[in-house]
Amino acid sequence: MNITLPSKNRTAMCDYVLQMADSNLILAQRLCEWCGHGPILEQDIALSNIGLDLLGATRSLYQYAAQLQNENKTEDDLAFLRGERDFRNFLICELPKGDFGFTVVRQFLFEAYQLLLLEALQQSSDTHLAAIAEKSHKEALYHYKWSAEWVIRLGDGTEESKRRVQESIDDIWTYTGEFFIATEWEQELIAAGAIPDFRTFANAWKEKVAEVFNEATLTMPPADVFMQKGGKNGVHTEHLGFLLAEMQYMQRQFPGEEW
Amino acid sequence: MNITLPSKNRTAMCDYVLQMADSNLILAQRLCEWCGHGPILEQDIALSNIGLDLLGATRSLYQYAAQLQNENKTEDDLAFLRGERDFRNFLICELPKGDFGFTVVRQFLFEAYQLLLLEALQQSSDTHLAAIAEKSHKEALYHYKWSAEWVIRLGDGTEESKRRVQESIDDIWTYTGEFFIATEWEQELIAAGAIPDFRTFANAWKEKVAEVFNEATLTMPPADVFMQKGGKNGVHTEHLGFLLAEMQYMQRQFPGEEW
Repeated sequence: MNITLPSKNRTAMCDYVLQMADSNLILAQRLCEWCGHGPILEQDIALSNIGLDLLGATRSLYQYAAQLQNENKTEDDLAFLRGERDFRNFLICELPKGDFGFTVVRQFLFEAYQLLLLEALQQSSDTHLAAIAEKSHKEALYHYKWSAEWVIRLGDGTEESKRRVQESIDDIWTYTGEFFIATEWEQELIAAGAIPDFRTFANAWKEKVAEVFNEATLTMPPADVFMQKGGKNGVHTEHLGFLLAEMQYMQRQFPGEEW
Repeated sequence: MNITLPSKNRTAMCDYVLQMADSNLILAQRLCEWCGHGPILEQDIALSNIGLDLLGATRSLYQYAAQLQNENKTEDDLAFLRGERDFRNFLICELPKGDFGFTVVRQFLFEAYQLLLLEALQQSSDTHLAAIAEKSHKEALYHYKWSAEWVIRLGDGTEESKRRVQESIDDIWTYTGEFFIATEWEQELIAAGAIPDFRTFANAWKEKVAEVFNEATLTMPPADVFMQKGGKNGVHTEHLGFLLAEMQYMQRQFPGEEW
């Protein structure tokens, strides 16, 4: 793979790309836990398919991060041989899959953000990242559509489905604040014009979400709700360690093993 | 530790001691999953205490197995660096902890067997194993009493507690057949008089269990129910791999790490 590496802010860009990759990977892992457990066959496959899309993006991002890092690591090293505190994924991605409604709500809130981010990232001065964003954006459009449709179907469905999906929203909401907080390295990249200032996306994101919630007869939590943070700095919930223990088992048990 | 190693059947004895150790370790791991989740504080602590007793026995057994094996392994190597197919624990020990009733029933069925085994093992010509059995037997008496009391309390309790505990019995029963099947190396040791012929314990075990079930107004499954097997030969349920992934995470991630 021949990539023109950026001449400036290379460490910060590596951190940022790792953060994107980690979020994709961890969410893909949660989605693929549904494999064989979906409510109906078609949706079982849809969940795994979305997971595999995210995994495809993860690979491109880790490959790029490895080049930026220049420490002779592979995408597999980055996925399977880093510890919990090294992972920078959004906390929202590591929450246990919950019921189908929980999974759908988490995906919807995540993809609504991804749509905005990936669209803007296509204008990045970093042409390789812009190319990855372009490909991912097409997939995010489908993921967004799929999850928004299910939010509406469950929210405007039976009394039980509405109750459960509303509870999921109230639970997950506190993990959405991280989308709009910039770490030090992100501030550096924003200042350099290498990535968009995603802190300004909050209103557009809320509008996107509100539109679907209205159609789904669901209620958006109040604006002053407490927001969790820490994932991007490696401070995680109690769930990530267990996910990594399972996901990394093979490489940890048989170091360097190949298919 | 100065141990007189047996002059004969050493490989078979090593396999047998590993099997005992693995069963204790895996069940201890399941019991300690209750830590902080018990129904009341006293029972929360009881569950962890029983787990720690089993872990104590595990250590003595692994230390002995390591000496018999003579491959310069430690108890930690045997616990944390063996793969799923190397583990010889009874399948009953690896079943997920379920609800409190499930945990209690599993413990009761296991300890009723342990009582018989450990009593007889004290007569083993292998004096070191006999000494371990003597210590463990005292603890098993307490574990048995504790779990039998809870089986009676839940079985002869409310309609719901009775229903749940009966369902647990019906689920777990199929994993009790393994207690009374001898592997090749066990047959060798039985023939040599090094361990008791536990295949003859089936009736005494059933009588012990029936006595408590009667008092608990619970029903014993029919004698011809299908019995699972495989654990002692390393063929496990889908649950063991996940348990090991979690239990071995630290040593796999930081090989050779010490406190």
